[in-house]
Amino acid sequence: MQPKIGFLGLGIMGAAMAGNLVKAGLPVTVYNRTPEKAAALVAAGARLAATPLSLAEETDILLAMVTGPEALDALLWGEQGAAGGFSAAKTFINMSSVPPRYTLNLAEELAPLEVTFIDAPVSGTKKPAEEGKLVILAGGDRDKIAALAPIFQVLGQKVVYCGPVGQGSMMKMAINLLLGVMMTGLAESLNFAQKNGLAPEALLEVIAAGAMNCGLFQMKKEMLLTADYPPNFPLKHMTKDLKFIIDTAYDSGAPVPAAHAVLQLFRAGVGFRLGDEDFAAVYKVLEHMNSRE
Amino acid sequence: MQPKIGFLGLGIMGAAMAGNLVKAGLPVTVYNRTPEKAAALVAAGARLAATPLSLAEETDILLAMVTGPEALDALLWGEQGAAGGFSAAKTFINMSSVPPRYTLNLAEELAPLEVTFIDAPVSGTKKPAEEGKLVILAGGDRDKIAALAPIFQVLGQKVVYCGPVGQGSMMKMAINLLLGVMMTGLAESLNFAQKNGLAPEALLEVIAAGAMNCGLFQMKKEMLLTADYPPNFPLKHMTKDLKFIIDTAYDSGAPVPAAHAVLQLFRAGVGFRLGDEDFAAVYKVLEHMNSRE
Amino acid sequence: MQPKIGFLGLGIMGAAMAGNLVKAGLPVTVYNRTPEKAAALVAAGARLAATPLSLAEETDILLAMVTGPEALDALLWGEQGAAGGFSAAKTFINMSSVPPRYTLNLAEELAPLEVTFIDAPVSGTKKPAEEGKLVILAGGDRDKIAALAPIFQVLGQKVVYCGPVGQGSMMKMAINLLLGVMMTGLAESLNFAQKNGLAPEALLEVIAAGAMNCGLFQMKKEMLLTADYPPNFPLKHMTKDLKFIIDTAYDSGAPVPAAHAVLQLFRAGVGFRLGDEDFAAVYKVLEHMNSRE
Amino acid sequence: MQPKIGFLGLGIMGAAMAGNLVKAGLPVTVYNRTPEKAAALVAAGARLAATPLSLAEETDILLAMVTGPEALDALLWGEQGAAGGFSAAKTFINMSSVPPRYTLNLAEELAPLEVTFIDAPVSGTKKPAEEGKLVILAGGDRDKIAALAPIFQVLGQKVVYCGPVGQGSMMKMAINLLLGVMMTGLAESLNFAQKNGLAPEALLEVIAAGAMNCGLFQMKKEMLLTADYPPNFPLKHMTKDLKFIIDTAYDSGAPVPAAHAVLQLFRAGVGFRLGDEDFAAVYKVLEHMNSRE
Repeated sequence: MQPKIGFLGLGIMGAAMAGNLVKAGLPVTVYNRTPEKAAALVAAGARLAATPLSLAEETDILLAMVTGPEALDALLWGEQGAAGGFSAAKTFINMSSVPPRYTLNLAEELAPLEVTFIDAPVSGTKKPAEEGKLVILAGGDRDKIAALAPIFQVLGQKVVYCGPVGQGSMMKMAINLLLGVMMTGLAESLNFAQKNGLAPEALLEVIAAGAMNCGLFQMKKEMLLTADYPPNFPLKHMTKDLKFIIDTAYDSGAPVPAAHAVLQLFRAGVGFRLGDEDFAAVYKVLEHMNSRE
Repeated sequence: MQPKIGFLGLGIMGAAMAGNLVKAGLPVTVYNRTPEKAAALVAAGARLAATPLSLAEETDILLAMVTGPEALDALLWGEQGAAGGFSAAKTFINMSSVPPRYTLNLAEELAPLEVTFIDAPVSGTKKPAEEGKLVILAGGDRDKIAALAPIFQVLGQKVVYCGPVGQGSMMKMAINLLLGVMMTGLAESLNFAQKNGLAPEALLEVIAAGAMNCGLFQMKKEMLLTADYPPNFPLKHMTKDLKFIIDTAYDSGAPVPAAHAVLQLFRAGVGFRLGDEDFAAVYKVLEHMNSRE
Repeated sequence: MQPKIGFLGLGIMGAAMAGNLVKAGLPVTVYNRTPEKAAALVAAGARLAATPLSLAEETDILLAMVTGPEALDALLWGEQGAAGGFSAAKTFINMSSVPPRYTLNLAEELAPLEVTFIDAPVSGTKKPAEEGKLVILAGGDRDKIAALAPIFQVLGQKVVYCGPVGQGSMMKMAINLLLGVMMTGLAESLNFAQKNGLAPEALLEVIAAGAMNCGLFQMKKEMLLTADYPPNFPLKHMTKDLKFIIDTAYDSGAPVPAAHAVLQLFRAGVGFRLGDEDFAAVYKVLEHMNSRE
Repeated sequence: MQPKIGFLGLGIMGAAMAGNLVKAGLPVTVYNRTPEKAAALVAAGARLAATPLSLAEETDILLAMVTGPEALDALLWGEQGAAGGFSAAKTFINMSSVPPRYTLNLAEELAPLEVTFIDAPVSGTKKPAEEGKLVILAGGDRDKIAALAPIFQVLGQKVVYCGPVGQGSMMKMAINLLLGVMMTGLAESLNFAQKNGLAPEALLEVIAAGAMNCGLFQMKKEMLLTADYPPNFPLKHMTKDLKFIIDTAYDSGAPVPAAHAVLQLFRAGVGFRLGDEDFAAVYKVLEHMNSRE
């Protein structure tokens, strides 16, 4: 019998992912704090749970995709929290981006409930989520992860096994480190070009024609040229992730000087009230700091 | 009548570029300080000039691809220097990576000689040079650049017009800023991953499957996994370019905090005697600074 | 009747501070995990408690000076922990350097025990501790802090009221931020001077004769000139404090780019196995990173 | 017979220094591009030269205190420039802050004129200049420097011999590196304190009572508390000096990560139009970057 799937969190990412599960014909029940966000999914065939607890009780495999530790804690351990419905028969897959240390703590807290816990954040933002082309960074029992293939294949093009629980979150940190640094590199390069009299289109053309061309830069090109930054991955979330990365790097003794420099720009961006724009708006942070003589 | 082409400088890049011109059947004469490096080209059909001066006298269009301002100055203005052979009938194309300010000075110094001066550094390192897939960043008279298409098409897949003389060099700075930051981002991410228990292959697989995948990372993958860094683009040259970039950024008022952080790593790399390895060896700089508790 | 004083922690700082209390004729009982360190104090007239709990039970005012949150937690809440002896009749003064957030949590944990809790870290390292010239950074009830003057006057030349509990720790962070940056500034200046052919003595003479002269630089002069760094304030503790500072700065939205740069040097210093040397050994971190061409 | 003294440049520093020479009864002739600035000195007994050339012709020992290389070049080599009046019988003392490399070039350019060239920048800003308490950082022939004691003693409390010509400028770089880092450390600490609820007066009181207390912090206290930054040492000059320092550090292989971080703040300060305020206004740069959530 096909397992029933629960989905917690219907933000930019969650809505796209749950939508793909519904489209694939899987039996999906969803929960979101603001139920309005579930309307389209319900119209498409999803069931709506009234509380995280009822979601957990009514389903076999619960996926969560929320903004971070606080949101996840509230949904798991708050009033009518999902954890109340966990048992040895169930699987809980956290796909939210959280620090590895948080994941390890969560694993300890979940242990007495005997629920199978999989740590599976994703690489990719809005568009890959919508297209089912996420890369899934899975930590936990290798066989159990393999058994989840039917679900993961709907959400993503690839599952990479990262190690025991916590290492999925760790991989996500490593990836977001690179993401933050690359985006800032593009922003510094473009701002440098403009301040020195080069056409931004010319720079982007040169980049696109060379070895640094990548999907990320193609995706951000329009934002940079139109100065309009609708959030695929909000700047404030990248800021939060970079702080986790700095912390983890510090603990492990890995030097990350570029990430430090990048974090400071994103932090300033939150200060400049750019937190809800896409993280490509780090370009606006640089513009703000330009000398205007 | 087909113009005669002269080529100054047969290092990693120059040898590959001159080789493509010869292969394309163009009449090429070369000069290199150490003439042994010309042997393969001569065997393939190139003529060898005894001095930069005779190279300039015997050819119509002179291309230079050397390591920077000092080398170029020596070849142009030194004893038996090429500039002695310049005239209104000739074209000099500098493809070496030099600071924009140097290019502007050079343009002034060349003005009395009436030679057509084109500023045309390239995006791409060893492999694209060998494959004729460089991107040519051209600064100077737009019509004259267009007229050079037969030559540029042999060397590269694309010519991007960047503006007046100096702006080719400027574009190269903007590109190398991004190159240095991206490479460092990859190095920080990989080192972070390793120090935190992730398999480097798994990280590279995740990157390759996502929006950050690019030719650069594919090219450097083997170096990073084997810890062997034969120089396509030597670390010391990237260091020198980053210093030019910092200087230009300072003058123009563009903030480049990531580039500052990256320069300091590369500078340390020169100190750690990694200057002659590929610039991907910035990974070894990080390893050197790892906490070893 | 004179209150009985208990002292927890006899490291570099604690031993000096407890010693001054004994010398001042106050009734002092001490506890240290390794009781050998108490020998000199006992010889001078202090009593020795067998456990933190008995120390708390036998005294009225308990002072703690340990290396950070972990050590303090162990002494308070561990087996035979001091907190078991707290009551409304007692006062607990934490003089250890801990993050403000930790102090606030501790205040909440102590609230049910009704003990008066004062947050009073100090500015000053070994020498001012020995000479009773510390500056006491007091957070908590203003009247209760005023009433502790007889004790604080023995330990320091000055008590600065910083605000409610937690703000003493906060002031300590602000002071150590400056301390870390100043020490690094001196180290960079001295290393820069030496790499550029200036005599270190000449630089220190110029500094001593000008507006930047201060006790700190006088104290560190000998270490820098002899390259021998016995720990007054170990580099690993400054590293830990700088991490707290970065974290607090991040949370409050205060940019601290110099502190970020400084933290990375100290972190590398721990990696270079300099953690147990004085924090002035940041100079050796720079030397290690010098280019050696 | 007493040598006649010429003084080039009557800015904040120069006016104070020339004033002290006049007060000491020495025969002083001055030149300034805007002669109005000489009025008070002329009233006090100085002569006024019409051009740099006539100043050099009419005096034996020429001192220059201007804003940097460009200003000095104009006065020496421009129309009616002072260099035209130099000869073996004369001494030229540059007290302006310039890069060591510039000083070495200048020494070469002056060599054919046979003038004795002394490189003597100063440590200290407006107040020490007014009080004759500068520290003079002398590079050049040791005996000739010793012979200039009667003049140097009027200007400063101390002459430190730094080595051959160029090393005075080098010492000045080392000192200003520390100055820029310390000022930024104070600014970061104060801004951190304020964003975290501490009173700025309390922080400054703690600093003043401890080992970091120094004349610099006392001098800047009022500026920081009143947010009014009349220029003793303009922020734009510190910015320029920090760029020289970074360049010199790069060339010598000395890592200066704190100076890099500090330069970026000062550069942003120039962009925020704070260049003409005192360099303590780096505090305002931080405030500008504060998160305002």
